[in-house]
Amino acid sequence: MIEPSIALYGEAFAKVTASLDELLTKAHVRYAMLVDRKGFVLAHREALWAPKPPTLDSIATLIAGNAAATSALAKLLGERRFNELVHQGERIGLYVEEISNEGLLVVIFDETAPIGRVKLFAKKSIEEISGLIDSLGSVETTNADLGNDFALDASALLDDLFKGM
Amino acid sequence: MIEPSIALYGEAFAKVTASLDELLTKAHVRYAMLVDRKGFVLAHREALWAPKPPTLDSIATLIAGNAAATSALAKLLGERRFNELVHQGERIGLYVEEISNEGLLVVIFDETAPIGRVKLFAKKSIEEISGLIDSLGSVETTNADLGNDFALDASALLDDLFKGM
Repeated sequence: MIEPSIALYGEAFAKVTASLDELLTKAHVRYAMLVDRKGFVLAHREALWAPKPPTLDSIATLIAGNAAATSALAKLLGERRFNELVHQGERIGLYVEEISNEGLLVVIFDETAPIGRVKLFAKKSIEEISGLIDSLGSVETTNADLGNDFALDASALLDDLFKGM
Repeated sequence: MIEPSIALYGEAFAKVTASLDELLTKAHVRYAMLVDRKGFVLAHREALWAPKPPTLDSIATLIAGNAAATSALAKLLGERRFNELVHQGERIGLYVEEISNEGLLVVIFDETAPIGRVKLFAKKSIEEISGLIDSLGSVETTNADLGNDFALDASALLDDLFKGM
């Protein structure tokens, strides 16, 4: 089964959410998402004033697929891959930028948000989030780093469980 | 067999080429192409200072494919399709904008060209070229509109050909 490449929870999740919220407010965008390269939504926020969001899961999947598909084009131009994509429709714009190796920041905005402003605050968010993701390390490392306290707590919890049987 | 959706030759081709040349000079970009939605290169120009270009045919095919593939994403966001795409790598950027219904303007630039400048002169080119394409009409109309002089010239040419036999 395919699983998200980053495990985002607890304090790290709260920090990412706060960063996305700040992006929403300052750049006046509709939706902001942290997506991994497989297309999983790791965190997402919506502006209060934004209309009912489209299916963000499907959008994330299509964006991750599209980002992967453009790598052939990037290679023809002598680039490893594109780290920034802008799709602009009549009213709605889509801004995608990579975060570390594993993540993509996806911002959906309308004509009330100038693209320069979106990019500026998106880059600020990316700086905050990429630091966080790098400190998290891979899924394996975080699982392995549970510490001594956890072992004691877990064993106490198991004892309690079996007492009741 | 798949054929280009626009027949570009003679005066129209010269005007498109002149418009692309102006774009190259004013925006300081490497390559500029007029591509149809099927991926055919209708006209292309390269800056004198630009390195040997990558295979523009392959790039055109991938870009047309990518533009078509993003239409599902556009529809999820309530747009018919995206009329503007920017792909940015470490050094090389790619700017694609639609011209009328049938064409795409593709601009490839490096870090010497600010994106704002590229967009500005690309939009000027698009205005010139879209007027031209609309006046050309579809392939059928241009073929049908050959006029009386052509018939006389053609018959004279055929007479000459058969005289020599």
